[in-house]
Amino acid sequence: MAHVLGQNQYGKAETRVVRITRNGHRHEIRDLNVSVALSGDLDDVHLTGSNAHCLPTDTTKNTVYAFAKQYGITSPEAFGIQLARHFVDDTEPIHRARIRVEEYVWDRIATPDNSAKFIGSDEIGHSFVRRGTEVRTSEIVYDGSSVQVISGLKDLIVMNSTNSEFWGYIKDRYTTLQEAYDRILATQVTARWKFGFTGAEGEPEPNWDRSYGQVRRHLLEAFAETYSYSLQQTLFAMGNRVLDNRAEVDEVRLELPNKHHFLVDLEPFGLKNDNEVYYAADRPYGLIEGTVHREGVAPVIPVA
Amino acid sequence: MAHVLGQNQYGKAETRVVRITRNGHRHEIRDLNVSVALSGDLDDVHLTGSNAHCLPTDTTKNTVYAFAKQYGITSPEAFGIQLARHFVDDTEPIHRARIRVEEYVWDRIATPDNSAKFIGSDEIGHSFVRRGTEVRTSEIVYDGSSVQVISGLKDLIVMNSTNSEFWGYIKDRYTTLQEAYDRILATQVTARWKFGFTGAEGEPEPNWDRSYGQVRRHLLEAFAETYSYSLQQTLFAMGNRVLDNRAEVDEVRLELPNKHHFLVDLEPFGLKNDNEVYYAADRPYGLIEGTVHREGVAPVIPVA
Amino acid sequence: MAHVLGQNQYGKAETRVVRITRNGHRHEIRDLNVSVALSGDLDDVHLTGSNAHCLPTDTTKNTVYAFAKQYGITSPEAFGIQLARHFVDDTEPIHRARIRVEEYVWDRIATPDNSAKFIGSDEIGHSFVRRGTEVRTSEIVYDGSSVQVISGLKDLIVMNSTNSEFWGYIKDRYTTLQEAYDRILATQVTARWKFGFTGAEGEPEPNWDRSYGQVRRHLLEAFAETYSYSLQQTLFAMGNRVLDNRAEVDEVRLELPNKHHFLVDLEPFGLKNDNEVYYAADRPYGLIEGTVHREGVAPVIPVA
Amino acid sequence: MAHVLGQNQYGKAETRVVRITRNGHRHEIRDLNVSVALSGDLDDVHLTGSNAHCLPTDTTKNTVYAFAKQYGITSPEAFGIQLARHFVDDTEPIHRARIRVEEYVWDRIATPDNSAKFIGSDEIGHSFVRRGTEVRTSEIVYDGSSVQVISGLKDLIVMNSTNSEFWGYIKDRYTTLQEAYDRILATQVTARWKFGFTGAEGEPEPNWDRSYGQVRRHLLEAFAETYSYSLQQTLFAMGNRVLDNRAEVDEVRLELPNKHHFLVDLEPFGLKNDNEVYYAADRPYGLIEGTVHREGVAPVIPVA
Repeated sequence: MAHVLGQNQYGKAETRVVRITRNGHRHEIRDLNVSVALSGDLDDVHLTGSNAHCLPTDTTKNTVYAFAKQYGITSPEAFGIQLARHFVDDTEPIHRARIRVEEYVWDRIATPDNSAKFIGSDEIGHSFVRRGTEVRTSEIVYDGSSVQVISGLKDLIVMNSTNSEFWGYIKDRYTTLQEAYDRILATQVTARWKFGFTGAEGEPEPNWDRSYGQVRRHLLEAFAETYSYSLQQTLFAMGNRVLDNRAEVDEVRLELPNKHHFLVDLEPFGLKNDNEVYYAADRPYGLIEGTVHREGVAPVIPVA
Repeated sequence: MAHVLGQNQYGKAETRVVRITRNGHRHEIRDLNVSVALSGDLDDVHLTGSNAHCLPTDTTKNTVYAFAKQYGITSPEAFGIQLARHFVDDTEPIHRARIRVEEYVWDRIATPDNSAKFIGSDEIGHSFVRRGTEVRTSEIVYDGSSVQVISGLKDLIVMNSTNSEFWGYIKDRYTTLQEAYDRILATQVTARWKFGFTGAEGEPEPNWDRSYGQVRRHLLEAFAETYSYSLQQTLFAMGNRVLDNRAEVDEVRLELPNKHHFLVDLEPFGLKNDNEVYYAADRPYGLIEGTVHREGVAPVIPVA
Repeated sequence: MAHVLGQNQYGKAETRVVRITRNGHRHEIRDLNVSVALSGDLDDVHLTGSNAHCLPTDTTKNTVYAFAKQYGITSPEAFGIQLARHFVDDTEPIHRARIRVEEYVWDRIATPDNSAKFIGSDEIGHSFVRRGTEVRTSEIVYDGSSVQVISGLKDLIVMNSTNSEFWGYIKDRYTTLQEAYDRILATQVTARWKFGFTGAEGEPEPNWDRSYGQVRRHLLEAFAETYSYSLQQTLFAMGNRVLDNRAEVDEVRLELPNKHHFLVDLEPFGLKNDNEVYYAADRPYGLIEGTVHREGVAPVIPVA
Repeated sequence: MAHVLGQNQYGKAETRVVRITRNGHRHEIRDLNVSVALSGDLDDVHLTGSNAHCLPTDTTKNTVYAFAKQYGITSPEAFGIQLARHFVDDTEPIHRARIRVEEYVWDRIATPDNSAKFIGSDEIGHSFVRRGTEVRTSEIVYDGSSVQVISGLKDLIVMNSTNSEFWGYIKDRYTTLQEAYDRILATQVTARWKFGFTGAEGEPEPNWDRSYGQVRRHLLEAFAETYSYSLQQTLFAMGNRVLDNRAEVDEVRLELPNKHHFLVDLEPFGLKNDNEVYYAADRPYGLIEGTVHREGVAPVIPVA
């Protein structure tokens, strides 16, 4: 007996594309991981074995590479929008495309002592080193009429070594936690933020790269500057700060694992631990998640 | 300027609890990874620095351990339901609890030659070996009135070395894929299935362990027995098979990465590759996702 | 100024090859990850920019695929020996080859209810499911005159829920550990064992597959049957058991992380924890390593 | 029958210790992962079940924490030397200690616009962000008479987008690789370097932190500045550069995976790929390993 086919999507995930642009001796690099998910008139593919409406995942991969050449990669968002529009507008049975992009950032290798012999500058134009653990993310959805862009970052690891307290909470039968008046607050930020941009005709695209840099800066600064009574409070301050400063963003969602750093008990060794020696725990960890959005805007970023 | 706090939740993630039950020399083991996420009247925690409504994540961890002792762990689902009910029913500001559980399965170590001296059986009652890469999953949500249970599995890796074709698909400018009439089909199954169970008064709980074993069996058998024209078709057959056989389940969602095995071109070496030698690729991979549900049931399992 | 080039080697790492053998409807599968490391007369490659003595890593990869076709894969060890002999014997500047192989094991999917319609047996001959987290390993070294084979396994996770004690140890200023008279002993076995086989003319090869299965069995049984006063004692018993039972092996090295399972303190909740509820910790972990070898045999397996 | 116990060692692995030093509002942070391995008069521990000579791994963990308080952490190397000397000199049955340390580096969060209100500088003194994927490593061995220090780094990912060729290599039956005259050269550097330092009485310790920074700089510069005909040539240049510039180092070993970036064939789409669009492959990868050492120095860094 056949049951009902519900939401479905398919495409090539994790196509790794590196795009080099050569301006003489100075090269630019964009290093992306692109995942395509297509939906549409695909019932037959699932039910009858006919692939007549199926654009192969292999073709979506090829398209990523070809577009990298044809249009270049000016930003993950602009690249994703081009791809999403193409799949929906140019392939009859495809009605919706979701493009997810991860970007890995590279810095130039500085060679102050030696570089004059290369390009008369303090950098070598074709040599790069991967920056940070942090990954820039973007998700673009296009349904044939409007575009939705949710950008973000993950694996940005931060720590305040003071200015964090936690007390005054509920006590029940299972409470053993001691109240804390000066603790380490550390987390590995996953953030996603939605743009007001809808891709309407004539609507200018934000400066995606600049926007990313500024949102990241405001997240870091809000984390650093907030005197915290809970990670929830810090989360709200971070989301709020972004909305205060970036008009192009109307919703922010944050997932903040509380990467516990426990004070080690040194008393058995006759030593006093004056907030100096901590044990960085792996699991379990607190996990604090929340959305901050502008009044009047219906939030859309899904819960993980 | 303060913006609006949207959906938020918090709790201790990844509490690793192992529960041993000793029946004489024969021990039973349940090995879980439990993640708690609580929502409710928590605006002040985010906005004012007051934790008066905050049940600390540390307490949710303690509760997991205490419940393992007080009630035992008869199944991930039953254990999760108990926890979810407790957090909502016993803590005023908490209005919703989501419990996610991973279970790692252990087999007994068989020692046919030596065991008589231990317990007169062909197994040693206290010695175990971890089975498989596969993880059993469960998500329980309780909002004060009803319970929703979505169980599942992940990292179940399967392969058909024949009985898979792929042809007749859309060709466009970016198509290079050759049609295939006998290919390897391999995937790493992530499955989630929703139970009709709602936790109403007097409603009997399914036999969670038996249900899990049977759903798993039907997924495997449907994968093995389906002559496939696309992974989408296999996906639908797998979901359909579960619904056909397990009345307690009313929705199935599958995520099936197409773990490509490419035939190696051996012609440059003067050799013919008659579907014998394959290269197992890592990335990119096709990713096929879909829901199959009973008619009249509104699907609720979220898209990943 | 040029300094001295010391030990060096190169080759293609992690070539993933899957070999299917079709016996009618019943297929056999070997799934390997092969890494090649070659040494020899390679100074110029490093010093002058000449690649005249360099067999490209790409060619070593091609050779893996071609050999899988030409000779089949009867076992990781036999396949590795063939490859090692080829690189050294057939390429003048290459004087030593080290082949490392990981094998991933697949079981057949059992379909008792349905299979008659396929092949008149209780299994489908072309459908497989990956077994276990465990990986079979092998390292073959050939230097032009003799072969050395070190086989092994990793990620075999085992647990005894009783029959383990730990007490009577050194106490110093930094000791806080309580003595234990009934604890969980869990570990993730990495084992390597060296064969006496040297590849001399006319010397028969061991039955590699049977040997592997038996060594694995003896490791498991010795773990299960040893009443343990320390993981070191268990380690020695495991190595000893293999040497007692497998004449083809003359050295065993084991790396056993002590995967701590700590009894949770439930007293604050008014509960007694009678060796029932444990916290499975990630880090830190004890790490116990050791070699057991036959008298008169010089051990060669390197320390990790 | 009892066989022979060979090399053995044990200790607590991966103790995660974070040490904060507070200089008023400006905090310093060292974030380490410390693994201890002890050897000595330990036969009885393995053979008889007596732990009379066993310093528990739990105690080695406690010692790491206590020493972090007692002596601070001025560098991974100095900290490791203190620990190694302690275990051997203060525990009769322990004759050799190997301490491995990983260090994770944190940068301060810069907050140019807001920081005046904090500490009159452009940084907040207690807020940090994790730098890079790169990990600093160190291994200290002490046997009761001398100290050996091997420092290193891993996961330093670098790329040259030009100035790399590969041609003129051996061709055999299995060769298909095309010669390359302008390719991407990318690798993930694992480097270890041995110091001449032996810990003799009165011998001054190198400035470990400065040395690390300078070795890292020379590795990066040599990678960037070398016009490469093979990754082997680049490897030698990198090792040589360090020895040329850092007198305190007498041996360097490098493991350089060739992270292949393949030019995508865009011709099927009517496009020319002028070294612009690359596919970043995962596996297989070339793996180039080698040692460079000073004349007259016997190399000791083991092959991985």
